[in-house]
Amino acid sequence: MTTPAIIMVRPQLGENIGKAARAMLNFGLTDMRLVEPRDGWPNPMAGPAASGADIVLEQAQVFATTGDAIADLQHVYAATIRSRELPKPVVTAEEAAKLMRAATGHGERAGVLFGPERSGLTNDDLVLADKVLTVPVNPQFGSLNIAQAVILVAYEWFRTGDETPAMQMPADQETASKADIEGLYRHFAEELEKRNYFRPPARRAVMKLALRNILENGGLSEQETRTLRGVVKALSQPPRTKD
Amino acid sequence: MTTPAIIMVRPQLGENIGKAARAMLNFGLTDMRLVEPRDGWPNPMAGPAASGADIVLEQAQVFATTGDAIADLQHVYAATIRSRELPKPVVTAEEAAKLMRAATGHGERAGVLFGPERSGLTNDDLVLADKVLTVPVNPQFGSLNIAQAVILVAYEWFRTGDETPAMQMPADQETASKADIEGLYRHFAEELEKRNYFRPPARRAVMKLALRNILENGGLSEQETRTLRGVVKALSQPPRTKD
Repeated sequence: MTTPAIIMVRPQLGENIGKAARAMLNFGLTDMRLVEPRDGWPNPMAGPAASGADIVLEQAQVFATTGDAIADLQHVYAATIRSRELPKPVVTAEEAAKLMRAATGHGERAGVLFGPERSGLTNDDLVLADKVLTVPVNPQFGSLNIAQAVILVAYEWFRTGDETPAMQMPADQETASKADIEGLYRHFAEELEKRNYFRPPARRAVMKLALRNILENGGLSEQETRTLRGVVKALSQPPRTKD
Repeated sequence: MTTPAIIMVRPQLGENIGKAARAMLNFGLTDMRLVEPRDGWPNPMAGPAASGADIVLEQAQVFATTGDAIADLQHVYAATIRSRELPKPVVTAEEAAKLMRAATGHGERAGVLFGPERSGLTNDDLVLADKVLTVPVNPQFGSLNIAQAVILVAYEWFRTGDETPAMQMPADQETASKADIEGLYRHFAEELEKRNYFRPPARRAVMKLALRNILENGGLSEQETRTLRGVVKALSQPPRTKD
């Protein structure tokens, strides 16, 4: 499976090319294509900004036209806002990522066009794209710089293929069993009974349930129940002399 | 509904505070909290990097300790990697965003801790969090800078509340009706029949179906069918003299 190309059309600052390279590699993209970079290529400002993503810069290909840069691709998205003059379907970054993953999954090649920092993509670039990719953003403050736009597109690409569970419990900490919690509760209750804590008698049952509920709901690990049993034991003994 | 706080613990560079402010406002977050910023506050490097998100910097609150900064919050996530020493549930940025939106939706307050650029959060900071928030990233190149981490967390927050349709068709371009497509197809077929294009006779039906299929699948707007009818008409006439 190929990964999507990131095509920077007439990029101005080498620093932004470097930042884009870093953002790409953070999320597993390596196919960078540059169309007419303003300051030529290689650009000495790019490397430091890439913060170690040199492989992306070293493999970057330079093209004379946008058409040349995307000639081998089957699916091209233009990262911009909706154009009135050139009506095209507009997709979110997430939807573009899903569509590109489907396409690359059966051997096709996809890419995303990003325009120059100030002026953005021209109509001559935009017409070559299948769809417009627009990152949903605060309508009152929607200016994303190019490296930010690249990282969000790359992140969505990675995310659509990522299988990290939404929530993971600590791996080396086994969740307490119900018997562990029961043991801890009994330890608390026993020491508290000795001290006549559960009173008045009419409240005794509800107080015990409230305590037990805290322990059951606490999400404790087995290790943590042992820590708390040590705490109950220490609290129920006279102060020890300091070591 | 409140929006989550972004808590930068002992941030070093004013520029990164500015970039974080911009990233926050891009995705609708405005509650920035700074714990012991290294170079004091305000920091003259922050404003230019915020690129217009000055409101976030102006409203930023400074605290002496992490505990003070989060005292009013009910749900705190630590943006870091899993800690072996302090076992906590680990959630993706997306899951954290969903959980924070649920919490803020019923009036509770949430926030995300980000550590200093080089050293990250200490155990004394981390222990105060409910959960660890880890952005899924390329395991071979996982270094996200702080502004990138903030933008991804802020983006996920925005995304979980965003109702932008995954794909939108051009608003002012009505999709062609089946009658529009039929008319266009008939126009093509009529002019092509005159020119004896559909041959040999055994292939005539399949050729007409193939042409029609292109037109039906083309996703044309009503305007585009009219454009193409003009094209068919022009092609089927002798060349005109130039205007």
